[in-house]
Amino acid sequence: MSSRVRIDVPEGSGFGPTHLPYCVFRPLGEEPRVGARLGDSIIDLAVALDDPMFHQPSLNAFMTQGPECWREVRERVTAAAESELPAAAVHAVRSVRLDLPVEIGDYVDFYASLDHATAMGRMLRPTGEPLLPNWRHLPVGYHGRAGTVVVSGTEVVRPHGQRKTDSGTPDFGPSRRLDIEAELGFLVGSGSELGKPIAAGDFAEHVFGVALVNDWSARDIQAWEGQPLGPFLGKSFATSLSAWVTPLDALTEARIPLPAQEPEPLPYLRDSAAWGLDIELRVEWNDQLVSTPPFRRMYWSPAQMLAHMTVNGASTRTGDLFASGTISGAERGERGSLMELTWGGTEPVELNGVGRTFLEDGDEVVITATAPAIGGGRLRLGEVRGRIAKAV
Amino acid sequence: MSSRVRIDVPEGSGFGPTHLPYCVFRPLGEEPRVGARLGDSIIDLAVALDDPMFHQPSLNAFMTQGPECWREVRERVTAAAESELPAAAVHAVRSVRLDLPVEIGDYVDFYASLDHATAMGRMLRPTGEPLLPNWRHLPVGYHGRAGTVVVSGTEVVRPHGQRKTDSGTPDFGPSRRLDIEAELGFLVGSGSELGKPIAAGDFAEHVFGVALVNDWSARDIQAWEGQPLGPFLGKSFATSLSAWVTPLDALTEARIPLPAQEPEPLPYLRDSAAWGLDIELRVEWNDQLVSTPPFRRMYWSPAQMLAHMTVNGASTRTGDLFASGTISGAERGERGSLMELTWGGTEPVELNGVGRTFLEDGDEVVITATAPAIGGGRLRLGEVRGRIAKAV
Repeated sequence: MSSRVRIDVPEGSGFGPTHLPYCVFRPLGEEPRVGARLGDSIIDLAVALDDPMFHQPSLNAFMTQGPECWREVRERVTAAAESELPAAAVHAVRSVRLDLPVEIGDYVDFYASLDHATAMGRMLRPTGEPLLPNWRHLPVGYHGRAGTVVVSGTEVVRPHGQRKTDSGTPDFGPSRRLDIEAELGFLVGSGSELGKPIAAGDFAEHVFGVALVNDWSARDIQAWEGQPLGPFLGKSFATSLSAWVTPLDALTEARIPLPAQEPEPLPYLRDSAAWGLDIELRVEWNDQLVSTPPFRRMYWSPAQMLAHMTVNGASTRTGDLFASGTISGAERGERGSLMELTWGGTEPVELNGVGRTFLEDGDEVVITATAPAIGGGRLRLGEVRGRIAKAV
Repeated sequence: MSSRVRIDVPEGSGFGPTHLPYCVFRPLGEEPRVGARLGDSIIDLAVALDDPMFHQPSLNAFMTQGPECWREVRERVTAAAESELPAAAVHAVRSVRLDLPVEIGDYVDFYASLDHATAMGRMLRPTGEPLLPNWRHLPVGYHGRAGTVVVSGTEVVRPHGQRKTDSGTPDFGPSRRLDIEAELGFLVGSGSELGKPIAAGDFAEHVFGVALVNDWSARDIQAWEGQPLGPFLGKSFATSLSAWVTPLDALTEARIPLPAQEPEPLPYLRDSAAWGLDIELRVEWNDQLVSTPPFRRMYWSPAQMLAHMTVNGASTRTGDLFASGTISGAERGERGSLMELTWGGTEPVELNGVGRTFLEDGDEVVITATAPAIGGGRLRLGEVRGRIAKAV
């Protein structure tokens, strides 16, 4: 008879029984499979729920099933979390390897923070209006490189590229202005057909869950290449995604009204149940807390982003990732990029006693977040972590 | 005993035994599989070569094998094309359904025609320099939506969106400035690792073949949304790809020197064997020839595009598509977009007796191309075709 165990959840863990984020993990020497986190443990869903949908190297087979299945599985995982489980179905988080949880379809990055867009506009166009004319009419966004979305913990190699100089002629070498962007990503589970826009109110029918994102950015490469077609190589070298996907249903207590939108958005961007999320991020640079970006201040809601992304009839697929863009607040200590925190590199941040601007080789950045949990307390979104390796 | 047939190739077919482009096709009621075209016939490679690699709904399983396999298969297909084949291995092109030949990974679109970039610059910045400062230093590009790359023949539904108006406030509705972009696409077969740039000289180790692309564009949506992050919904509603992928090895006679590049590109963009392609496109709008864009005038070579796309360490995957951007020549009759052909809608094109600017519902655009073939004559790249359907 196999032994059975009950998982202890440490006080204030942030991974209690009303959270249960999903991951793809590999115990040493074994095949990847889907798990759910409780405390510092992973419930092996391939064993505990015994369904081929979880014997998979990504969450896609599960995500594609749609919201009814997501709810049913969440109920079963919740029941498992409250039971004694076969020991073979429980792993310590620290004993396994975590893989990229989702096979990414398309990756879209928005620019949905008013504080961020305003700060960037002030830096780039100091004498003009900080916001461009379109910004309050639509969630500005662009497509990023899906193939270079990597799981948290993957080393980020400093990219080479053509760097903007003051002479008007670029030079070439490793980026000197390597930056972070603290973001929240949304993962499409149930896709949509070509020619069929997703209404803002149907967000929860399509979006499976959320995960923290660090959209690494080489500002000197971006500044040179970006006109007229937008970011390309300054972003495409790596985008880190948390290994943990928090189900949308774990965030019901985090829903809050959106900040006021002026002018009133066009009808397709209105949603009678429009909501933002009261998620508070923390950005740690070499173990020092440097910023606490507040997602609650985001101007455009996640549902508006999805409605906008598909209003032209673009289809969506299981695994599509769309991220919020840099999350920044109004205060200096709430800015989600070093570009803003150091005001374009002119106002160093004091880091362990030294004034610093952009990322140096060996630097590590860890982004975490908390949100109100169901049943009280706060849940903790799975971290996204990355260390900078020297350019090759 | 099964009957055997020899495929006749009509004189000037463009699909002779030195071309042999690949497709994914379905005979009525059957599963998709990989074929190669000879004349007006398809050789069913799942039958003729009897390899599981061809019993597939995309070319990806074949493409991922790498250049040695590509050459070996091409030799076997060439031998099959010169033999009598079992009747069951031969289908008439007109009797089958053609699928999207490749499962697309990432889709990148460049802006590599000097004539096109100059024309667009003249229209958008009439009093300034037509080219932006970065244009002659790097192949400008951006990521498009991979999930809305559709096979030739797929109906293109006119997209809704926020349209730029003269008032400064957008309106919303079906695009009024729906356009084409005649392009050549390159398909990555053998991918590359994160952190490992592809040298320009290694192009043929990674690129499997080429196919015509029509990158449909809603100019009024694009003009409003595009600052500061580039094209998004003005492009993401549909990009049509030919059903026929011409192997790179079929284009050896089409290789030509590049036009002069001034200033000399940075070392990573130099290639001792730099070549362009002498491919002549034809754009037909409602059966009337309106343009003959010359690929031979492209400023940036395909190998430079790939080297640039990966110089920051971005990885590539089997099925990645990168396209040239609109192909235009110096003459009016060589422009690859209606934006240029009608100079932003101000100089109508006479189409079947009527002055026309942008696409109307029911319009059909067919892009074809020819290039010098191995052994003389010209090969014909498989067409890319699309008809505009009324906005939903």
